[in-house]
Amino acid sequence: MRVRLLLDYDGTRYHGFQIQENANTIQQELETAIRKAGGGSARIDGAGRTDAGVHALGQVAAFTTEAKIPGERWAQILNYYLPADIHVQESTEEAADYHPRFRPHNKTYLYQIYQGSRGLSIYRRYAHCVRYPLDTALMQQACADLLGEHDFRAFCATRSSVKQYVRSVYRCELQAEGEWLRLYIRANGFLYNMVRIIAGTLIDIGRGHLPPDTFWQMLATGKRRLGGKTAPPQGLILYAVHDLTDSPAAENS
Amino acid sequence: MRVRLLLDYDGTRYHGFQIQENANTIQQELETAIRKAGGGSARIDGAGRTDAGVHALGQVAAFTTEAKIPGERWAQILNYYLPADIHVQESTEEAADYHPRFRPHNKTYLYQIYQGSRGLSIYRRYAHCVRYPLDTALMQQACADLLGEHDFRAFCATRSSVKQYVRSVYRCELQAEGEWLRLYIRANGFLYNMVRIIAGTLIDIGRGHLPPDTFWQMLATGKRRLGGKTAPPQGLILYAVHDLTDSPAAENS
Repeated sequence: MRVRLLLDYDGTRYHGFQIQENANTIQQELETAIRKAGGGSARIDGAGRTDAGVHALGQVAAFTTEAKIPGERWAQILNYYLPADIHVQESTEEAADYHPRFRPHNKTYLYQIYQGSRGLSIYRRYAHCVRYPLDTALMQQACADLLGEHDFRAFCATRSSVKQYVRSVYRCELQAEGEWLRLYIRANGFLYNMVRIIAGTLIDIGRGHLPPDTFWQMLATGKRRLGGKTAPPQGLILYAVHDLTDSPAAENS
Repeated sequence: MRVRLLLDYDGTRYHGFQIQENANTIQQELETAIRKAGGGSARIDGAGRTDAGVHALGQVAAFTTEAKIPGERWAQILNYYLPADIHVQESTEEAADYHPRFRPHNKTYLYQIYQGSRGLSIYRRYAHCVRYPLDTALMQQACADLLGEHDFRAFCATRSSVKQYVRSVYRCELQAEGEWLRLYIRANGFLYNMVRIIAGTLIDIGRGHLPPDTFWQMLATGKRRLGGKTAPPQGLILYAVHDLTDSPAAENS
């Protein structure tokens, strides 16, 4: 049986989603929990490979098992064996060939920026905390430059080995609420560090260290060095995986 | 010199504010940081003694030191030596007899309840997560019973040795926003576990396990057993200490 999981996690303690030798990862914890639950040595396939310290509110993963446990029961069973910082929201049975990454889907990432002083001890785990004034209206205008289909090679960590840089961004929206800025980006795919480069560049635009048309310049020239710093991982959250096929594993935004 | 600190902390790792032997406490961390900063072996006095696992957004504390460091410089210096889950927002010099507890003040506590499934891995540290439906309107009505001056002996953990149970509650407000319920209680003093008993009872009223007039019954009879369970510590946050004297250490809500 093929089982799909919708899950959230606090990435603070983990070296990212994907299994690595001698490192604590989300995938490792899930596979261990499946084994403890009697599901055998299953391989977990995730929709997005989040990096070290990155969180998820709507990650999707799948595994295959011979265990005679109904699909919808797995959520409760896995939560029993998982550490408290990984949580399965729901589990469903899928077709045997279901793979969350190799099917048409969009993903939405959220990047959180906190501008206050009060509460840094708590919010630092889930936000990039900045202590300088930001021109939110200017940042919101800049976001519009990223919408649509573009070559995003300027928004990709140099150590990436990807060959194809064209992606479509369907939403790039900065919401301001009190001392919080929340950047939502939905696309049909993301390059390595793409959201963190966008967030870091946007912050530099907002504080006047980079011109308001920086995104446009980066897209036009393909030059990473025109952008700002890569913003730190703790502000990044895989917010939702949007399945674009007619399957029960539908939207979960 | 007498120095006042306004601070926030994530209480997850701590056995409360007050120093205990062989236990990690906020007070201990602050005194260690003061010593490392060259402030000598100072004693920290806090406005509120939060319990194990309880957080603070607006705790106030004070200490006396011979060190020749200006009052407003201490925040930055202490943050350098403190662990990341304790954060000093500001420091100010006060009169030599300043003590945050032994002067007229109110405190506001916030109790957070999360009703959703999505994000439990993250929110569980800062909220009491409940999975049953709650009648928010009924809970909001019940809150009104607590306003004013009452004998709150029914809202006090039995192991408390306090002699005087009369307190005045100036605010008891439940705000509902999406899957979050936030209970704000401001009073001139709090009995041991008072907010957590109020929160636990309020939840039982909201789910129909206790009658809507339970608070009124508890106040009238003084019987703790008429109330609900004591809600867990991780939802509790010392939100603000309101200084009621004409001092520079004014409101910080």
